[in-house]
Amino acid sequence: MRVRLEDVADLAKGAALLGAGGGGDPYVGALMLRQALAEKGSVQLIDVNELPDHVLAVPFASMGAPTVAVEKIPNGEDFTAALRALERRLNRRAEAILCCEIGGINALLPLILGARLGLPVVDGDGMGRAFPELQMVTYNMFGVPAAPMAMADEHSNIVMVEAPAAQEVERLGRHVVVAMGGSAQICLYAMSGADAKRSMIRGTLSLALGLGQVIRTAKSADNGPHQAVLEYLRSTPYYQHCRSLFEGKCSDILRETRAGWSVGRAAIEGFGRYSGRTLEIQFQNEHLIAREGAQIRAVVPDLITVVDAATAEPITVEGLKYGQRVCVLGISAAPIMRSAEALAVWGPKVFGFDVPFTPVEVLNPE
Amino acid sequence: MRVRLEDVADLAKGAALLGAGGGGDPYVGALMLRQALAEKGSVQLIDVNELPDHVLAVPFASMGAPTVAVEKIPNGEDFTAALRALERRLNRRAEAILCCEIGGINALLPLILGARLGLPVVDGDGMGRAFPELQMVTYNMFGVPAAPMAMADEHSNIVMVEAPAAQEVERLGRHVVVAMGGSAQICLYAMSGADAKRSMIRGTLSLALGLGQVIRTAKSADNGPHQAVLEYLRSTPYYQHCRSLFEGKCSDILRETRAGWSVGRAAIEGFGRYSGRTLEIQFQNEHLIAREGAQIRAVVPDLITVVDAATAEPITVEGLKYGQRVCVLGISAAPIMRSAEALAVWGPKVFGFDVPFTPVEVLNPE
Repeated sequence: MRVRLEDVADLAKGAALLGAGGGGDPYVGALMLRQALAEKGSVQLIDVNELPDHVLAVPFASMGAPTVAVEKIPNGEDFTAALRALERRLNRRAEAILCCEIGGINALLPLILGARLGLPVVDGDGMGRAFPELQMVTYNMFGVPAAPMAMADEHSNIVMVEAPAAQEVERLGRHVVVAMGGSAQICLYAMSGADAKRSMIRGTLSLALGLGQVIRTAKSADNGPHQAVLEYLRSTPYYQHCRSLFEGKCSDILRETRAGWSVGRAAIEGFGRYSGRTLEIQFQNEHLIAREGAQIRAVVPDLITVVDAATAEPITVEGLKYGQRVCVLGISAAPIMRSAEALAVWGPKVFGFDVPFTPVEVLNPE
Repeated sequence: MRVRLEDVADLAKGAALLGAGGGGDPYVGALMLRQALAEKGSVQLIDVNELPDHVLAVPFASMGAPTVAVEKIPNGEDFTAALRALERRLNRRAEAILCCEIGGINALLPLILGARLGLPVVDGDGMGRAFPELQMVTYNMFGVPAAPMAMADEHSNIVMVEAPAAQEVERLGRHVVVAMGGSAQICLYAMSGADAKRSMIRGTLSLALGLGQVIRTAKSADNGPHQAVLEYLRSTPYYQHCRSLFEGKCSDILRETRAGWSVGRAAIEGFGRYSGRTLEIQFQNEHLIAREGAQIRAVVPDLITVVDAATAEPITVEGLKYGQRVCVLGISAAPIMRSAEALAVWGPKVFGFDVPFTPVEVLNPE
């Protein structure tokens, strides 16, 4: 299939919801993708099975604090510059573009690069959500090396990072992102078509597009806007265990940009059947844990997503404001993201929470 | 000529004196160079005129806070890794190694790389002293691009920095150095033999070697140890305007490691004919300005060097201790380092001092 101008709004909305509060506000990404598609017409979206085993596929993403990315806009040349730098290092041209994360802006930006260069983008990603650190992708879990990583900014600066471990690529790259003003365009985890087939979470781009279509019409849904969203999620192979965890008003938010991330917490004061209760959400770019007092309602890698109570429109960490009336959804991560091996890379302990991972459907039985 | 094991101690001493307090304590560098020469026998030192115009010559240096480099030792593999990464980027092998700065450890390390790889090292450098930032070299002044810069650490991490301006290479690289734990091995300002000829300060390695020989025998000199040093400096093409500025005891020192540098100030309480007077020295890796109250006694780019009062052995910023009896020397920078063009890159204003550059021989007439 081909992604066209008329798909952008839906794709952006679906991706924002799967961003679990992070992945960057897709507003800017949608504007940029619209411009690229207005110029180029469309971009090809292919199934990973269509990717020949021997081709070079390169994931593209924007790295940094979403709070910064809203104001510091990439100029587009930096997208190409990052890819060209990596190609030069590998002495080989990329034949397809991959997504690292389906959540937020990083679902859209690879399509811009694909459109600009006439390269297909593969339908899928490496998380089925958004995560704040570079090692937190299935590509890493399946042994695809993160390095070399090419980083580019809008001032024609290029930095290439090579380290044996993905965590080191993240650590070094994070310092560089700060030096680049808080955001940078990156290409990393370059892999063969064969590696893409064994390490991707498949079909998440078209899934996000479908999710966005549902959100667009959700406010007029008979059973309420977020029920329509939950129904769609239940039809997917990854997100079928999903719950409405809480409804209320944002009564407090503490958010700071620290070491290249948006870090903090938000409190939601319940209304309706949640009256008298308070949900606290902690985030590092993405929502990581939702608690009522000592009781955990959902925890990473399951998705915790805040949506507008009236429209089911997703609200990002940097978009959340005092007084907003919201509904908090808890959504199961893709099964592959919940394995013991996977939890070692992005489970609660990795983010400093001394709690075991418990699936959202176990924490919230129906 | 060839540099051999028996030259190391003298070269290290001469380089430490020309380091103006910075450039890193050559103790560790001398140990490493001794080991390399014990293994390889010797390293070839050539005059820049012997360098064919078309060859690729690559400056090598260690970047970071000298306070860190004393404890975090390079493993030698990182030297080669930095050069190989740059060669890979340029798709060309280096045929000669250059020094960036003659001051301190960076006068010795290029010889280690030369010895290990059997490459000649060119007699000269890009400062005639030491400076804390990457853009502060004659190579930059004469239009040699700093980028690409390869950086390597002792954990097999490699970062390649490319930016249009040398200041940007410094800024990005400084963040990376911090990420690498405070020090890194770097190759940058790759240039042709022709460019080396027009941009180097020539002969400073052999000059440092001669200076070290003088220091070794200075304590038994008839006219006092530091007079012997001044006499030798007067015989050179760069350092002929040199003065003994002050003698006294280190009575206070404030030194912190900040953003990858050693930053602070020292107070010297006069004795002998300086009794009742105090000299204050401010430094950023290197000594930058020496003042008695409001009166400037010497200022960057002229060299301010602290030596032991009894032996004329140079004392680095991180070696200076409360109670040490020292003599402070003021030494003219190479004439090329004092031009208006040069002062824009490393004059007092660049370091935040709102004073004009005044030559040490004008500030201290004989």
